[in-house]
Amino acid sequence: MSELRKDPIIDRWVIIAAERSRRPHDFFTEAEPPPSGFDPFAPGNEDKTPPELAQRGRPEGAPANSPGWNVRVVPNKFPALTQEGELDRQGLGMFDKMNGIGAHEVVIESPQVDWDFADATPQEARDIIEIYIERMNALRNDPRLLHTLVFRNAGIAAGASLAHPHSQIIAVPVIPAQIKETLDASHTYFGQKERCVFCDLIRQETSMKDRVVEENEHFVVLSPYAARFPFELQIYPRRHSHDFTQMSPAEIAALSEVLPRSLKRINEALGNPAYNMIVQTAPHAAPRVSLDDYWNTIPQAFHWRIDILPRLTKVAGFEWGTGFFINPIAPESATEYLREAV
Amino acid sequence: MSELRKDPIIDRWVIIAAERSRRPHDFFTEAEPPPSGFDPFAPGNEDKTPPELAQRGRPEGAPANSPGWNVRVVPNKFPALTQEGELDRQGLGMFDKMNGIGAHEVVIESPQVDWDFADATPQEARDIIEIYIERMNALRNDPRLLHTLVFRNAGIAAGASLAHPHSQIIAVPVIPAQIKETLDASHTYFGQKERCVFCDLIRQETSMKDRVVEENEHFVVLSPYAARFPFELQIYPRRHSHDFTQMSPAEIAALSEVLPRSLKRINEALGNPAYNMIVQTAPHAAPRVSLDDYWNTIPQAFHWRIDILPRLTKVAGFEWGTGFFINPIAPESATEYLREAV
Repeated sequence: MSELRKDPIIDRWVIIAAERSRRPHDFFTEAEPPPSGFDPFAPGNEDKTPPELAQRGRPEGAPANSPGWNVRVVPNKFPALTQEGELDRQGLGMFDKMNGIGAHEVVIESPQVDWDFADATPQEARDIIEIYIERMNALRNDPRLLHTLVFRNAGIAAGASLAHPHSQIIAVPVIPAQIKETLDASHTYFGQKERCVFCDLIRQETSMKDRVVEENEHFVVLSPYAARFPFELQIYPRRHSHDFTQMSPAEIAALSEVLPRSLKRINEALGNPAYNMIVQTAPHAAPRVSLDDYWNTIPQAFHWRIDILPRLTKVAGFEWGTGFFINPIAPESATEYLREAV
Repeated sequence: MSELRKDPIIDRWVIIAAERSRRPHDFFTEAEPPPSGFDPFAPGNEDKTPPELAQRGRPEGAPANSPGWNVRVVPNKFPALTQEGELDRQGLGMFDKMNGIGAHEVVIESPQVDWDFADATPQEARDIIEIYIERMNALRNDPRLLHTLVFRNAGIAAGASLAHPHSQIIAVPVIPAQIKETLDASHTYFGQKERCVFCDLIRQETSMKDRVVEENEHFVVLSPYAARFPFELQIYPRRHSHDFTQMSPAEIAALSEVLPRSLKRINEALGNPAYNMIVQTAPHAAPRVSLDDYWNTIPQAFHWRIDILPRLTKVAGFEWGTGFFINPIAPESATEYLREAV
């Protein structure tokens, strides 16, 4: 019989329908790469992107927007949101809208088109993580922007449209509902227990062990209890921190190994599937938000993490109509396979 | 510049990123049909499915599970949830779970494998709509089940796995969060204004006109203001009603023409894309729920509808990480194309 599981933080149920015992091979779906034609992100084509916002690797004194970089951040040429203009909020009867103010950047992760994040050296991964932090801190300075999301789409099924390896950064002028719901739930929990709900979750998981894929001094990698997607992974810092940008140098060094290794586990267990990687961190504590008490609790109540969502199943009418998800493999089985994968 | 729009009912923002003027042809993506091999839903193969729960079309006195039907409902052979067993709720530390109690049925919409709902005659559509109602009313009698969703996945990208045309019915033992959020919002609105928020929305849309694809005495077809998906459609009954099963005969007759025609619009404008169709109706007012006041307001505050979600874009890291959606075409432009499509 299948099982209904509730997410331990937010109000979301998942059906774990693992009736027929399936092995990772049954899920094998190699990601279809985006079409490779002209590569605007290749070294030498720096003039084909808007001027860069950050880079790593170029020797000091070398001109901006020239080759020689290892990682390079540029504005998205076709941005969903832009920083030009005024943040104009309007109502029209029952409808609310605002100008598309925000930021949409591209992190070109390597000069090589065939580079894979799962095979990144610790130094390569560190450059990328540090440049995420640099850009998140820069975007936080725009008081109109309330939240920044860093994410990576790998494979067409996960939404990738360019073959050259890259992540994206989008900053938005509202707190997304999903983040708000997590904040509300963790805030309520903190109010009742004076403990972070995620710290409690990590404690319970590391004592139960059956969903722990990997743990070390700094990080715990879990296959979450109420996983929406088969073989979903969460990477939590052990140390309580609401903010990805406040990692210590030792944590950055540890994550530079844990993150590529976690992607490698997915690749090895599932044959290089499409996936989304998402950095979940607290919203900016923007000064224009007046609910001081509320914002002051973020540092206690939120706990950043990284989600890795393999895209092996289709999201269909049931999911769109209810917000429920159907996951065809128990996270405990997924854990076993992912543990052994590297 | 793109525009951020808030859903008029729930806390969900959508980025309408229609910067570059695109025409429907740019979105043309013919649905990939599921592999056609042995067809367990074909007439003559009635013994390849679990025994039927309902049918239309067989002459009176003909044996059950024999050919001659036009529409046939059977339990899903590989159900996500089943009605056997006890509804056992358990906690384990921070985790909550329950047995996979529920129902998962398949509505085989036609004896013909190459039938298309978009080309259904009014009589064919009526048989399907009436059988949805019959099964929804049957499932409501199980006091463990709190909500029923009827949906249709067309094309592999929308989650279809069998080529023979069918819809699905899933009943669940909890009120899904998304339904709860809609109920809460519409309940609050009703408390303030003593009017249904959806009725107000329909009034505003039919007076503004720019998102009305079609309207007649009984139904209004809209391209919603904050559409998540390009060319998304909503079909609302004009008459206030929280419950799909309480349609009048005249409404059923009207929907039997409006629903296939709406699907036809999508097919014609977009080249037969994959799509999800979802019936959004109020949860069962199950007697075991004790919040009487709350439940008594459902008939005033909820308004059923049908969603049609063409699946032309990929849902990627940004959407999974925030609950925001990026829609590359303004609903007003989509409306123009869909109006002219039939």
